[in-house]
Amino acid sequence: MSRLLLISNSYQHGLGYLDHCEQQLLALYGPAIRRVLFVGYAGSDLAAYAEGARERFQRMGYQLDAVQDAADPAAAVREAEAIFIGGGNTFRLLKALYEKGLVDAIRGRVSTGMPYGGASAGSNVACVSIRTTNDMPIVQPPSFDALDLVPFNINPHYVDPEPSSRHLGETREQRIREFHEENWPPVVGLREGAMLRIEDGSMQLAGVNGARLFERGREPRELATGEPLDYLLQPGHLRSDRRS
Amino acid sequence: MSRLLLISNSYQHGLGYLDHCEQQLLALYGPAIRRVLFVGYAGSDLAAYAEGARERFQRMGYQLDAVQDAADPAAAVREAEAIFIGGGNTFRLLKALYEKGLVDAIRGRVSTGMPYGGASAGSNVACVSIRTTNDMPIVQPPSFDALDLVPFNINPHYVDPEPSSRHLGETREQRIREFHEENWPPVVGLREGAMLRIEDGSMQLAGVNGARLFERGREPRELATGEPLDYLLQPGHLRSDRRS
Repeated sequence: MSRLLLISNSYQHGLGYLDHCEQQLLALYGPAIRRVLFVGYAGSDLAAYAEGARERFQRMGYQLDAVQDAADPAAAVREAEAIFIGGGNTFRLLKALYEKGLVDAIRGRVSTGMPYGGASAGSNVACVSIRTTNDMPIVQPPSFDALDLVPFNINPHYVDPEPSSRHLGETREQRIREFHEENWPPVVGLREGAMLRIEDGSMQLAGVNGARLFERGREPRELATGEPLDYLLQPGHLRSDRRS
Repeated sequence: MSRLLLISNSYQHGLGYLDHCEQQLLALYGPAIRRVLFVGYAGSDLAAYAEGARERFQRMGYQLDAVQDAADPAAAVREAEAIFIGGGNTFRLLKALYEKGLVDAIRGRVSTGMPYGGASAGSNVACVSIRTTNDMPIVQPPSFDALDLVPFNINPHYVDPEPSSRHLGETREQRIREFHEENWPPVVGLREGAMLRIEDGSMQLAGVNGARLFERGREPRELATGEPLDYLLQPGHLRSDRRS
């Protein structure tokens, strides 16, 4: 009975913070929710980050509580009506979630229906692991295993290969192929503007610009907005039906 | 008395494997070296990777031994005349270096004069840590601390911000700034084509396209080819002379 909105990016070109996903956030939290717990550990200036988020959520009609202001952050999660995890550095975010004992607390609440919104790093940590983040490993979390709220990984800010580029660093597609040399989970490459809506075992792609699905041993393929993606919520779906 | 050549990239646009740094590799190893130990753990197909490297090094006049063919990889390092660590995934490389007991072996041999060549991931691991790699964290090494052969970090394949971009994922410069929110070592952003030559406590930038130096609390600045960079080999130089 999980309800999640996993957003590629916090800012869309030309728009303000979370403007491109406001309608989907309103649909996620709904009119019954009054307060949202904000987790901004991916950022460096926690107070400033929460202040900006507070103003933005108030414009959507929600009061915002910053997790770092709670004497007991895990208790704040257990008592929260809804949660939003903001973007920034994914390693810094996951390290803090472990250190503050929030991993199990968030898992438990999401499994019993607390709405979870995440953008960028906040979408990465909702997945099996952070092994498909784009971020630099500026700090070391105890594990790359993440909240495991969905049985796949996301690559946020997904960018297509640029055929005319003379730069020979790996493309994003090559990096995800390297991931599949070592790991099984499917990877949804969410372009900026795209997001995944998950509710009651059902999943669809929303927003703009679309997404690309990478599965181990298969050719990548485009995902269409609105296409039913429920099968990606089945753990190990690829592993059991693969041919090789 | 360390001798190192730390190269941004294995391939330069329009050229073959290591062609853009052949002269510098010949200068690093010199005419007295006959055999080079190749460490290709950053790659996925170790045999194919070593085969390609073997052909390339033979064209430079060196026999190549692949570390994975040794019954005791650490002994192979201790007995090697020279070493070259190839590019690929930095996390996979560092994990293998730890698992096979090569971290101390390489450190010991480089400190007593064994020439060390590295490209891309092979340059990342020569530094304080791999916390400025561009790679995805596809596997988890026991530590992000690396060989620490030089007291700074490298960001290989460095790319300048693209002012006309509508993509809002972090630029490389923003990622390095995030690194400095959490870490002290200076970062040399080596553009493709650039490399660092280190010998007897002296360091210069070589190759083409130049590099950018990022120091905590200071404005980034360009490094010029041939400019003496010996001060970057002094451990903690920035920490001791910083103003704030």
